[in-house]
Amino acid sequence: MAGKEPEIITDKNQMRKWSRAMRSQGKTIGLVPTMGYLHEGHISLIKEAHKHTNLIVVSIYVNPGQFSPTEDLSTYPSDFHGDIQKLMAIPGGVDAVFHPHNLYDYAKSKPTGVNNNSSNCENSGGGEPERKGVVSCVEERGLGHETWVRVERLEKGMCGNSRPVFFRGVATIVTKLFNIVEPDVAMFGKKDYQQWRIIQRMVRDLDFSIEVVGSDIVRDNDGLAMSSRNVHLSPEEREKALSINRSLSRAKSAAENGQINCRELRNSVVQAVNSAGGRIDYAEIVDQETLEAVEEIQSPVVFCIAAWFGKVRLIDNLEMNI
Amino acid sequence: MAGKEPEIITDKNQMRKWSRAMRSQGKTIGLVPTMGYLHEGHISLIKEAHKHTNLIVVSIYVNPGQFSPTEDLSTYPSDFHGDIQKLMAIPGGVDAVFHPHNLYDYAKSKPTGVNNNSSNCENSGGGEPERKGVVSCVEERGLGHETWVRVERLEKGMCGNSRPVFFRGVATIVTKLFNIVEPDVAMFGKKDYQQWRIIQRMVRDLDFSIEVVGSDIVRDNDGLAMSSRNVHLSPEEREKALSINRSLSRAKSAAENGQINCRELRNSVVQAVNSAGGRIDYAEIVDQETLEAVEEIQSPVVFCIAAWFGKVRLIDNLEMNI
Repeated sequence: MAGKEPEIITDKNQMRKWSRAMRSQGKTIGLVPTMGYLHEGHISLIKEAHKHTNLIVVSIYVNPGQFSPTEDLSTYPSDFHGDIQKLMAIPGGVDAVFHPHNLYDYAKSKPTGVNNNSSNCENSGGGEPERKGVVSCVEERGLGHETWVRVERLEKGMCGNSRPVFFRGVATIVTKLFNIVEPDVAMFGKKDYQQWRIIQRMVRDLDFSIEVVGSDIVRDNDGLAMSSRNVHLSPEEREKALSINRSLSRAKSAAENGQINCRELRNSVVQAVNSAGGRIDYAEIVDQETLEAVEEIQSPVVFCIAAWFGKVRLIDNLEMNI
Repeated sequence: MAGKEPEIITDKNQMRKWSRAMRSQGKTIGLVPTMGYLHEGHISLIKEAHKHTNLIVVSIYVNPGQFSPTEDLSTYPSDFHGDIQKLMAIPGGVDAVFHPHNLYDYAKSKPTGVNNNSSNCENSGGGEPERKGVVSCVEERGLGHETWVRVERLEKGMCGNSRPVFFRGVATIVTKLFNIVEPDVAMFGKKDYQQWRIIQRMVRDLDFSIEVVGSDIVRDNDGLAMSSRNVHLSPEEREKALSINRSLSRAKSAAENGQINCRELRNSVVQAVNSAGGRIDYAEIVDQETLEAVEEIQSPVVFCIAAWFGKVRLIDNLEMNI
C-alpha cells in the first residue's frame, strides 16, 4: 500500500530550512518525536497530529543521551525502511522524516574524557568520564556535549529512580528537536506518562511556543501496551506480561467501586505481576499533575508501573479519574 | 537628547507576536539581554548589535533565578525611566524594550514549598524548599518553576564556585528569553567571560538557531570595568578597586614580555589586590575556550578575577592572545 512519500531529511540545518519555508507559506507544523521501530502507538500519534496541524514531521532518532552505559542502546531495535513503509500507509501520510545521524557531534569541539569500560554504548573510546553517577552514552563517547535540561521535581521518582540519566536525556533531546524543527505542536504518548508530564512542564518553564498534546495508550488485542521493546519478549514472557494491564484494569474497577486505599490497590497489582513471574521496578499511584504519591484516591490519579519480564523492562499506566 | 522611542512590551506573548510580525516582514532581530541600570557597557553592546541585525530588542529583567537568597537581589540597582532615556540617546535607538514583571509566574501551577528564613529575595513566603544546596530566589519564592538548563563543565569553577546557582539561572533565563524573543543574534559582554562562553556552548549544544556575539569590555576613564554594581562603591573603594585592572594590565605586559608562568603572574595580581584592601574570590588564568586552568601560557588564555571591595563583588578579565 503506497501513499505519500515523506521527504527524508538528515541534516539539521536543512530540517530547519524546510520548516521555515513551510511556515512562511502559512503552514503549521506538528512534530512526532520517535526512536523508530514504529508501531500502532506511533501511528495513532501521527493520526492525532493530523487533527492539529497542516504538516507532520516525524523524527526518527535513537537518542544516546537518554541511555546509560548499562542500558539497551546497542540492542534497541530499528527498521528504517519498514518505518517509512508504515508512514506511507497512514491516511494523509507524513510530510517529512527527520533522521539525523548524530545530534551530539559538533564540529570544532575539543575532545573530552571518555570511558573504555565495557558498555552498551556503541563506539566508546578510551579515557575517563568526568562525572560519576549520572553519565549517559553521550558523555561516555566523549562527544563534548555538556548542556542538559532538567525538570528537577518531576524527573525524580518512578522511571527517574531506576534510569537516572533518562529524563535529563529526554528533556535535552526534545529541546534540541524543538529548536531544529520549530514545530507548533508536539505529540507525546501517555504510555510514557512521566515523560509526557515532564515535557509539558519543560515547555511551560522554558517558554517554548509549542503546544504539547498527549495521546492515549494504544494496546494490542491482548491488552499489552504497544512498545518497540515488546519485540524482545518471548511468547511466554509476553503472556506473563499481560499481568500488568490485567491487574491495572482490576485495580481501576476496584477504585471505581470505592476501594480508594492505595496501599491495597498497589499490593494487588504487585502480587499479580510477581505471581506471573515479573519483577516489579515500581508500582505507584500518583497525582496526575504533580506525580506525587497519594495514600487515598480523592482526585484524578494515575497508576504507573514498570516491571521486568526476562531482560525486557516494560512500563504501563492507567488514569483513574475519580 | 530625544531619539527613537522604543516600544515597551511587558507581556511575553505580546513580545513573541512582535518578533514574529517583524520577521514576517523580512527583518532580522538582535537581542541584548540586560538586568537594567544601563551603563556604557550595555550601550556598546547595543551599538555592536546594530551592525548585525535590522532591529534591536533590549530586555530589562532582574532575574531572580540567578541569585541565591544570600546574594544582592533585593538591592540590585534599577532605574527604568533613566534606562529608556539612555536607549533613546543611542544613534538608531532600539526598537523594543522587553520588560516583563515576572517570568517565573505561571498561571494554574500548584504551589510548592517555600522558605521563610531571612533572605535577600523579596516576597518570600513560608514553608520549606525541597532542594538544599542549590536554591535560587525562584525556588525560595515557591513559584513552581522547576526546569533548569545546565552547562555542566563550563559552569564549574570561577564564578560557579562562589555563586552555585548563578550560571544555572543565567542559562535558564537566556533560554526563556530566546524562546520568547526568537532573535537571530544575541549580544553578550565579555566582561562576564564565563557567562559568554557558557551561552555559546548552550546555543551549540541545544541547537538554538541564534548567533552569539561577544562584545569587548568597556572601561571607565580610570580603567575600571563598567558594572551596574559600581554604583555601590564608595569613592575610596572605587580607588582601591582600580588595583584589579591595573594589576591585570601589568600581568598582560609581563606575559607579552615572556613571563608565561601562571603561578607567578597570578601571585602578582593577588598581591596587588590584597595590598589595596580587596578580598580575592578567585584569580585564574584559563584557556579561552575550555576555561580550564593552565600552568604556562602557550596559547590564547584569559586572566579572570573576582574580588570584593567592601560589600561589592567585582569581576574583570583580560584576554592574552599569546
